Amino acid sequence: MCRLLAYLGQPIAMDKFLYEPENSMIKQSINAKELEEPLNGDGFGVGWYTPTVSEEPAVFVSVYPAWNNRNLRYLAPKIVSGSLIAHVRAASVGDVSESNCHPFHFKNMLMAHNGGVEQFEKIKRPLKSMLSDEQYLWVKGQTDSEHLFALFLDALKKKGETFTADDVADCFQEMINHLNLLMTTYGIEEDAYLNMVFVDGERMVGLRYVTNAAVEPLSLYYSEGSKYVCEDGMCRMVPAEGKDKSVMIVSEKLTSIAEDWRPIPKNHMILVYKDLSVGFRRVS
Amino acid sequence: MCRLLAYLGQPIAMDKFLYEPENSMIKQSINAKELEEPLNGDGFGVGWYTPTVSEEPAVFVSVYPAWNNRNLRYLAPKIVSGSLIAHVRAASVGDVSESNCHPFHFKNMLMAHNGGVEQFEKIKRPLKSMLSDEQYLWVKGQTDSEHLFALFLDALKKKGETFTADDVADCFQEMINHLNLLMTTYGIEEDAYLNMVFVDGERMVGLRYVTNAAVEPLSLYYSEGSKYVCEDGMCRMVPAEGKDKSVMIVSEKLTSIAEDWRPIPKNHMILVYKDLSVGFRRVS
Amino acid sequence: MCRLLAYLGQPIAMDKFLYEPENSMIKQSINAKELEEPLNGDGFGVGWYTPTVSEEPAVFVSVYPAWNNRNLRYLAPKIVSGSLIAHVRAASVGDVSESNCHPFHFKNMLMAHNGGVEQFEKIKRPLKSMLSDEQYLWVKGQTDSEHLFALFLDALKKKGETFTADDVADCFQEMINHLNLLMTTYGIEEDAYLNMVFVDGERMVGLRYVTNAAVEPLSLYYSEGSKYVCEDGMCRMVPAEGKDKSVMIVSEKLTSIAEDWRPIPKNHMILVYKDLSVGFRRVS
Amino acid sequence: MCRLLAYLGQPIAMDKFLYEPENSMIKQSINAKELEEPLNGDGFGVGWYTPTVSEEPAVFVSVYPAWNNRNLRYLAPKIVSGSLIAHVRAASVGDVSESNCHPFHFKNMLMAHNGGVEQFEKIKRPLKSMLSDEQYLWVKGQTDSEHLFALFLDALKKKGETFTADDVADCFQEMINHLNLLMTTYGIEEDAYLNMVFVDGERMVGLRYVTNAAVEPLSLYYSEGSKYVCEDGMCRMVPAEGKDKSVMIVSEKLTSIAEDWRPIPKNHMILVYKDLSVGFRRVS
Repeated sequence: MCRLLAYLGQPIAMDKFLYEPENSMIKQSINAKELEEPLNGDGFGVGWYTPTVSEEPAVFVSVYPAWNNRNLRYLAPKIVSGSLIAHVRAASVGDVSESNCHPFHFKNMLMAHNGGVEQFEKIKRPLKSMLSDEQYLWVKGQTDSEHLFALFLDALKKKGETFTADDVADCFQEMINHLNLLMTTYGIEEDAYLNMVFVDGERMVGLRYVTNAAVEPLSLYYSEGSKYVCEDGMCRMVPAEGKDKSVMIVSEKLTSIAEDWRPIPKNHMILVYKDLSVGFRRVS
Repeated sequence: MCRLLAYLGQPIAMDKFLYEPENSMIKQSINAKELEEPLNGDGFGVGWYTPTVSEEPAVFVSVYPAWNNRNLRYLAPKIVSGSLIAHVRAASVGDVSESNCHPFHFKNMLMAHNGGVEQFEKIKRPLKSMLSDEQYLWVKGQTDSEHLFALFLDALKKKGETFTADDVADCFQEMINHLNLLMTTYGIEEDAYLNMVFVDGERMVGLRYVTNAAVEPLSLYYSEGSKYVCEDGMCRMVPAEGKDKSVMIVSEKLTSIAEDWRPIPKNHMILVYKDLSVGFRRVS
Repeated sequence: MCRLLAYLGQPIAMDKFLYEPENSMIKQSINAKELEEPLNGDGFGVGWYTPTVSEEPAVFVSVYPAWNNRNLRYLAPKIVSGSLIAHVRAASVGDVSESNCHPFHFKNMLMAHNGGVEQFEKIKRPLKSMLSDEQYLWVKGQTDSEHLFALFLDALKKKGETFTADDVADCFQEMINHLNLLMTTYGIEEDAYLNMVFVDGERMVGLRYVTNAAVEPLSLYYSEGSKYVCEDGMCRMVPAEGKDKSVMIVSEKLTSIAEDWRPIPKNHMILVYKDLSVGFRRVS
Repeated sequence: MCRLLAYLGQPIAMDKFLYEPENSMIKQSINAKELEEPLNGDGFGVGWYTPTVSEEPAVFVSVYPAWNNRNLRYLAPKIVSGSLIAHVRAASVGDVSESNCHPFHFKNMLMAHNGGVEQFEKIKRPLKSMLSDEQYLWVKGQTDSEHLFALFLDALKKKGETFTADDVADCFQEMINHLNLLMTTYGIEEDAYLNMVFVDGERMVGLRYVTNAAVEPLSLYYSEGSKYVCEDGMCRMVPAEGKDKSVMIVSEKLTSIAEDWRPIPKNHMILVYKDLSVGFRRVS
């Protein structure tokens, strides 16, 4: 089912999310706490921005489990970034291959997904037929996630060269509308779970959604403050004060500090704007 | 550009092709002799039949180079089979991933390709739109090869449950016709090179073809006799005598023994029937 | 902590152990039932004999988890052997690398280990200094297991070219004696757990041992009968009748059929002779 | 035989060495120009310093070929560092495993080797017996290179916590003396080739050496100037002017610009001091 994390704010070393918290992403790769199937051992990926060098993110993915990856252990404390995504995968749709690892990358954008569309093969072909040639050819792997992002990216293209967090939210909504229509048309009755995060180095949007209003979506939390710090093995979000701000979106709580984590409301999006202010929007 | 080998005949240990000849498949992975770009280091694959256990072949692929693969070195002398394909890859279209490794497998069939369709992305989408749902969803990777085999498999399906080497040749022809039409329609002017092999455990077909009649296709040879033997570092095809027969198709000569290797004529198919008799057919 | 399986008897397809039982080796790789830490996702290995081709075994190891390995899924139903070892690893001592994957191989022998020697680095150097040059250079990896097998192999060398299951048991005993002396000398006070299996294609020995007589060793069971069969998703050992015999040693029960699995007594070895008769010996 | 590169100077993006020059490290991995065997496809490694975050370097190694590595392609343009080592491997001694990939790392130091000691197994055991316990246990892999660096590191330890480029050169000399003595004692008559580089984030030393004074060592060049720039596919060292300085050591020339590359004299070391001044010392 996967676990994910997205971050926007003060530059921070990646091991503060990956290794240091009591329920770090690495711990979640072995034994996630808020999942029925706790193992996320089918590869992983991290993407991050280095704005002084490039608008495009760096991406490091691997088909190995995150917990024993020597390169990740070396890189995590050395990568300092103000905008990043991390993902550990439990393969549902699609082989364990680099092409199926999250985050997916298009231009200056990164996206990751936790959840899944049951019987995705029923709608794969009609979904692909809706794509622009550019996004059709952009898809490299087999996952439902990458195909849904292709729909999303086609919607975003209509917004023009520059866009806001609200535009991104519009496009998640459009992607959801397409998905619901496809599922109805092709007779998929199972619920589809879509927890997704988007970053482009300057803004961030998270989605917590399930197609069936009667059930609970997968867990998704956010945390906001001035910065996330780890000292003596204790990690916490320092309350905002002054102009420094940082926002994090996580599949599950990184620590047992209750006040650090607030659930994103069911079937809502969280929008983090360029000025790091936070808004919410209901999926319609 | 890849190198390939297919075999049908007396059961033989796989290292007789992979490691022992002076110009073995492993040597070809490092330094192919009949290629401009001699390196084939972007993964490899072998597929073979164990008819006492299953009609379906075993397949072992890897994204590592063949020359330093510990598992292949262990397996090759222990795998004894009367029908197999081996392939070393130089990636042109498609990432280096297991999904892009040859041989490709469908039911009891294996196929491998050496060559390529330049600007394949121009025809990828229309080609896919021609596929049956089954073959559309069967495609897992990004290569021109796998997509062409999907066309081929759709043609073969029309032949029914059982088919002959002639039926297989018909379907290669149909696949070629489709490709030529697509290339014309979508304005691909570069020559496409299609050296392909097919085995199903009981028959084998090889294709040596280039879309432009004015140029030479890539090299493809066959060798026939009673069995292929390696002694004291010397490998050769023992002339046929009695009822034992074996036929091999190779991208390039495994040895400098001239009489062991005959070129397959330009734009021809070689058909190896269940009784191991050999025929040829011109691509029309 | 790893999980292992060794088998000697009627030729059998490897997926009967790896995939088919309700608690197959693959299931144990994800969620072992008789381990505190249920995950064994740090690589795997299988070794098996093909006596018609070679006295030396084939070995296939991987640093990927067993549960999502495409090659293993292809190979397991096609590998039919009368003598084999399978192992899924949870790395304790040593990186995740092919050199640290079990089974370890020397000449016609295979060995695997489940357990560990805490603080192994304290005795690594003195242990290595005890080895013959041949076994010193044979060690390729970093595990306690491989080093202990090197001690074992040096003991076995003194038995001459041919040896019996009793000779193998003698050498396990000698290895244990060396280990206990090293641990005492270099002040390791933690208990060392040694569940080990040895096969050479014709005989098999299993060891269930912990250095501290006051504690329970790790679980180790055996099963004997005429052959192990899986039908309609149900696997069981068919009771011996006539001359066909098969014996299996497993870290944990493959099924809930109680009568199929008997514990190997604490601090004992199980000896399976060439005629497939079974004996036990207490570790002294 | 491997290819290597070390750099100290103005911060620079790693793709300026790995991808951009006409004879980049990636090109050298496929087809090195100054090697008899041009292929360096048995893994690679890069190490670099991020002094604002840590004194210890980041290291990224892989057992895949460098030329098709997706992660390296993503990372290289984003890693900007003033001190780094890159290495592409052609395996001679030691399997293709992460433990055998260069650069080797100890504390804040990185080292890489191009060359080899023939018949290294003859001296492996006596060499290891000379090591301190710390360096004995530091060795994780099987290469001659890592063992020689362990000797070197033991020598360096005697220099104390802080050391100069001259101290480093002393220790290379001591390592060479040990090696020559071992080779004589254990009867290795083949020439050993040692081209090595050392960086610690603040200083850099390169060694170009062969044990036989009558033969030529492997190629090793240096380049110095203010900074290395690539524009429109042309890379060159900008001559020093003012206080900016950069020095590079390479196995072979990255470009055909003759004045950018000067050979390091036979059996000499190049010493690059903290102030980026350059000196040479003859191996005695």
